[in-house]
Amino acid sequence: MEILNNAIQDEYPDDFAWCYGCGRLNEAGHHFRTGWQGEQTLTIYTPKPEHLALPGFVYGGLIASLIDCHGTGSAALALHRKNGHEPGEGNTPPRFVTASLNVNFLKPTPHGVPLKAIGNVQEIHPKKFKVITEVFAHDHLYARGEVVAVVMPTTFLR
Amino acid sequence: MEILNNAIQDEYPDDFAWCYGCGRLNEAGHHFRTGWQGEQTLTIYTPKPEHLALPGFVYGGLIASLIDCHGTGSAALALHRKNGHEPGEGNTPPRFVTASLNVNFLKPTPHGVPLKAIGNVQEIHPKKFKVITEVFAHDHLYARGEVVAVVMPTTFLR
Repeated sequence: MEILNNAIQDEYPDDFAWCYGCGRLNEAGHHFRTGWQGEQTLTIYTPKPEHLALPGFVYGGLIASLIDCHGTGSAALALHRKNGHEPGEGNTPPRFVTASLNVNFLKPTPHGVPLKAIGNVQEIHPKKFKVITEVFAHDHLYARGEVVAVVMPTTFLR
Repeated sequence: MEILNNAIQDEYPDDFAWCYGCGRLNEAGHHFRTGWQGEQTLTIYTPKPEHLALPGFVYGGLIASLIDCHGTGSAALALHRKNGHEPGEGNTPPRFVTASLNVNFLKPTPHGVPLKAIGNVQEIHPKKFKVITEVFAHDHLYARGEVVAVVMPTTFLR
């Protein structure tokens, strides 16, 4: 199993690190972490015992959540790289939010093994990225998703 | 605030009641419950304190999960009604799984208030239903989603 050394979420400013999916400061959350694997992006997550659809299979909402945060993290990685930075260098990354999320559940996903979300990022416009994500278990493909992520608007700041 | 007396999930067979989103037997889950409101379907859920995107706003993955389970529940309600049954009458309802899930996040959703998912169900084919769902907080629309739900295939049974 790969280990992600440098994830984009590790360097989000504290005020932006509370996401239930990928915020390092949200104690009850999933703590999804997303990094580069060559030109693709990678998030690895092992669902908890309670993340069931039926016994033996992963809850679809967890897979949707994984694709969602993997998408915003991947967009942040891509814009950060475009700006000349890599995670782990200590530069504050951009923060994205999800405009739309599409998930196709191809087959029931087995529970009890790590899931790997692998993404390909495409710039649509300087503040808007599309991320195509495939979710694997044991190197078999179980779900495919697409996220359109936009740089966080000021309406998200109170 | 409306109270749902008869939810379809209350009558799923025990073996199908473990979903993290809507399974009444999954102690750690969300316990989404979906019923009829006239010709539309309704799920009401108040996100937990940890279900944050940023402080003050609801995590998108939770909204996606709500739309997902609301979709499968709504499809089950529709097929159950087509078969001549209503929840609360004690007849075992059909169980659906999600083939695809699309969510458009229209505006940041405020945290700390009940969310109402309201669905319109359309039969695509006797075992396949489309559910269009709108998610409201304080009667304002914050997200719109679409689920294609299919009668659970036997590959989900171990």
